[in-house]
Amino acid sequence: MRMVDIIEKKRDGYKLTREEIEFFVKGVVEGSIPDYQASALLMAICLKDMDEEETLNLTMAMVASGDQIDLSEIPGIKVDKHSTGGVGDKTTLILGPIVAACGVPVAKMSGRGLGHTGGTIDKLESIPGFNTELTRDEFIKAVKANGIAVVGQTGNLVPADKKLYALRDVTGTVRSIPLIAASIMSKKLAAGADAIVLDVKTGSGAFMKTVEEAKSLARAMVKIGNGAGRRTVAVVTDMDKPLGNAIGNALEVKEAIEVLSGKGPQDITEICTTLAGKMLDLAGKGDFKSCKAQAEEAIRNRSALEKLKLMIRRQKGLEDVVNDTNLLPKASYVKEYLAPEGGYIESMVSDRLGVASMLLGAGRATKESQIDPAAGITLLKKPGDRIEKGEAMMVLHANNPELFEAAVKEIDKAVRISSQKPADLPLILDIIE
Amino acid sequence: MRMVDIIEKKRDGYKLTREEIEFFVKGVVEGSIPDYQASALLMAICLKDMDEEETLNLTMAMVASGDQIDLSEIPGIKVDKHSTGGVGDKTTLILGPIVAACGVPVAKMSGRGLGHTGGTIDKLESIPGFNTELTRDEFIKAVKANGIAVVGQTGNLVPADKKLYALRDVTGTVRSIPLIAASIMSKKLAAGADAIVLDVKTGSGAFMKTVEEAKSLARAMVKIGNGAGRRTVAVVTDMDKPLGNAIGNALEVKEAIEVLSGKGPQDITEICTTLAGKMLDLAGKGDFKSCKAQAEEAIRNRSALEKLKLMIRRQKGLEDVVNDTNLLPKASYVKEYLAPEGGYIESMVSDRLGVASMLLGAGRATKESQIDPAAGITLLKKPGDRIEKGEAMMVLHANNPELFEAAVKEIDKAVRISSQKPADLPLILDIIE
Repeated sequence: MRMVDIIEKKRDGYKLTREEIEFFVKGVVEGSIPDYQASALLMAICLKDMDEEETLNLTMAMVASGDQIDLSEIPGIKVDKHSTGGVGDKTTLILGPIVAACGVPVAKMSGRGLGHTGGTIDKLESIPGFNTELTRDEFIKAVKANGIAVVGQTGNLVPADKKLYALRDVTGTVRSIPLIAASIMSKKLAAGADAIVLDVKTGSGAFMKTVEEAKSLARAMVKIGNGAGRRTVAVVTDMDKPLGNAIGNALEVKEAIEVLSGKGPQDITEICTTLAGKMLDLAGKGDFKSCKAQAEEAIRNRSALEKLKLMIRRQKGLEDVVNDTNLLPKASYVKEYLAPEGGYIESMVSDRLGVASMLLGAGRATKESQIDPAAGITLLKKPGDRIEKGEAMMVLHANNPELFEAAVKEIDKAVRISSQKPADLPLILDIIE
Repeated sequence: MRMVDIIEKKRDGYKLTREEIEFFVKGVVEGSIPDYQASALLMAICLKDMDEEETLNLTMAMVASGDQIDLSEIPGIKVDKHSTGGVGDKTTLILGPIVAACGVPVAKMSGRGLGHTGGTIDKLESIPGFNTELTRDEFIKAVKANGIAVVGQTGNLVPADKKLYALRDVTGTVRSIPLIAASIMSKKLAAGADAIVLDVKTGSGAFMKTVEEAKSLARAMVKIGNGAGRRTVAVVTDMDKPLGNAIGNALEVKEAIEVLSGKGPQDITEICTTLAGKMLDLAGKGDFKSCKAQAEEAIRNRSALEKLKLMIRRQKGLEDVVNDTNLLPKASYVKEYLAPEGGYIESMVSDRLGVASMLLGAGRATKESQIDPAAGITLLKKPGDRIEKGEAMMVLHANNPELFEAAVKEIDKAVRISSQKPADLPLILDIIE
C-alpha cells in the first residue's frame, strides 16, 4: 500500500477502505508516513469528507493506536459524558455526583485545559489538597467504594489523536466533522465507558458556531458510538452565553457546590439535570422523564452533594469546602466591571470572556503556564437582563491588580448593549440518539 | 502573515492575494514554511483551484525564486518552445534547426529525462562528442554565430519548482491545472525567451489524458505567458500514438535527421512544420500560413539540415552523422516484435512503449541510471495499419539481449489489435492563442 495512492483516492472523492485508513493511522503513529503526506490527506478529507463507515473506521484505528481502559472490574453500566468545550463549563463537577448518587458508577478520566479556562482537573485541583493522580488500582477502588472518582488521564490513550491534532492545528484541517468526531470519540471509546452522553455546544462560546454544524457533529458522534457498540446520545446545547455565572477554577467549583445545594443558577441546573437524566436513562434507570426526576431529587435530598464530599475526602481534598465555599482559594483583588451604557444586554461573547478570564490568570496561554485557581470572573448580569449605565455587570478576580486592565479591554469587546430585549433562545436545542 | 491563515483561506475557496502567494513561495524556498503546511495548501489548491490572476502571481513568484537568463545580447526575437512530455518526442531536434534556418535565433536550454526516454540533452549526447555543457558566454556566442545552440540547464532556475514538484509528487497534488501551468511556465519565463510556443500533448502517451484537460492546461499557460508580457501560443496535439517511428536517443536523432532531409514520417513532419510556423509567426516573420511555408521550404532546401550540422560542429559533435546516420551509436542486438494476431492495429499505448524502451536501456529508472544511447524501439507499423499474424511490427534495439524479454512483455500490454480499422484522429486538435 502506498500513501500517495490513498491521498489521490480521497482527493478524487472516493471512499477509503478500512485497511487504507488503518495503514494511514498506523503510519502516522509509527512515523513511517511523513507529516507532509498526512497533512495532504487531512486536507483532502476536509474538502471531500468521509462517510459514516469511514469515520467509524478512522475512530477505531485511532482507538487501537494506544492503551484502552478496562473498567469491567466495576459492576454496573458505566456512563461517560463529554462536552465539546465551552467557557465556564463546570458540568462534570455537577453531573458526576448526581449520577453517582442515583446509583450509576462514575469512573471519569479528565483533562487539563489549554487556553481560556482550566479543564475539569484544574478545577478540582483548586480544592485544597485534592489529588487527581491516583494509580489505576486506587482509581478503580475509589469508584467501587464511593461510586465516583475523577482523575487525570494516565496511560497512553489515543496517541494517534495527539499526533493528528498537532498537525491539524497548523495545517488548517481542524474544521472537519469526521476528523473532529473521530478525535473526540476515539478518546471516549478508549476511556472504557459502556455508554456515552455528549454535550455538543453551539454558539459564540463554542467550537461549533452554528446549530446546523453542531447537529452534524452530534449525529456523526452518535453514529460512531453506536457503531462501536456503546449506547450514545447527544444533547445540543446553546453556548451563546456563558453557562452559569462563574468563569475560573475555584469560582466554578463554588458554583457547582451551589448547584448541588439547590441554590445554583437556573440555566446550568437545567442543563445538568437533563444530561444526568440522559446518562441515567442509558444506564437503564428508567425512561428519560423519570431519570431526570431522579436527578432533580438527588439535588433536593442533598445525596449528590454528599457524593461530592465523599469523592473529595477519598481524593485527599478539603471536604469542608462543600459546607463552606469560603475555604476555596480567594483572589486578593476584585474589581467591578461597570455597564458602559444602559439598556438590555444583547450579548456577551463567551469566547472573549474566556480570554479575559485567562488574562486574569484562570487559564493557560501556553502549555507551561501556571493556573491561578482563584482568578476569574463572576457575572452579575447575563444576556437578556436590563442594566443601568454604571451598574456593576461582573466582578473580576485576580491576585495581581495589574491584570485587570487587559481583561477589561477584552470584556469591552465581549459585551453588546442594546435598547431592545434580545430574543430568548432555548438552552437545549436538540437531542440526537 | 501566518501560513495557517493562507491555507484556511484557500480551503474555504477564497482567492489568495499576490502577497500571500509570494509569502508561500518564498517560505517554501527558504525553508521557513514546513513541508506539511506546504502540502496542505497544495491539496487545497488542487481541490479549490486558482483563478487566472492567482496562477500568474504564483508563476511570477516562482520565477523570482531563482536566476533568470538574460538573452538580450542576442539580437532578434527569441522564441522558445515547450512540449508537455510525450513518448518519442524529438520535436526540439527538428524545430530548432528549422526556425534558425528561417532567421530566428534559437537559444535553447533543455533538460535531461527521467523515466521513459531521455530528454533533448540525452538525445543530443548520443551524437559522438557532442558537448551540451557550454558556459553562458560560449552559449551566447554560439547563438550569435550560428543562430542556434542547445545546451543543458545551468544556473539555479526556479528552485521553487524543484521543491514544490518534489513535494507534489509524493502528496497526490500533481494533477492541478494551475500548479502544472505555473511549474512549466515559470521555467519558460526564467529561461528568457521573448515569445513561447507550447506543444500540449494529450492522449495515452501524454500527461493530460483527455483533450479537455489538455485544452484547459493550454489556456492556463497561454494566459500566464501573455500576462507576463511574452507572446504565447499553444498547439494541442494528439499523443495517443507515438510521434514518428523512433523511440530511444540515437534512434530519435536519426529520425530527426531524416525529417530534416525531407524523408521523415509524415506525422512528425506535419507537427514540426506547424510548430515552427507558429514560432516564426510569433517572431514576426509573417502570417502563420506563410510561416509554415517557410518552415517547409527550410526542409526542402536543406538549410535546416545545414543548421543542425553547424550546431553539431560548434558543440564539438561528429557533424558527419547528418550525412550518414550509421555513424550514430548502434545496438549490438536487435529483435523483431511480431504481431500476435492479424487485423488492424487499434492502439499502441505510448506510455507502455516508453516503459519498454526504458527497459531496453533508453531511459532512466532512477536519477542515477545510465542511459544507453543506442537502445530503443523502431516502429514498423502504427495504429490504423493492417497487419498479418506473425508480421514484424517493431524492431527492438539493446546492447544486452537479456533485456528483450521484459520489454516484449510490456509491449504485449501496449498493443491492441482489432478486426475494424480505428477512427483516425487529427494530429493537431486545437490552437490556442
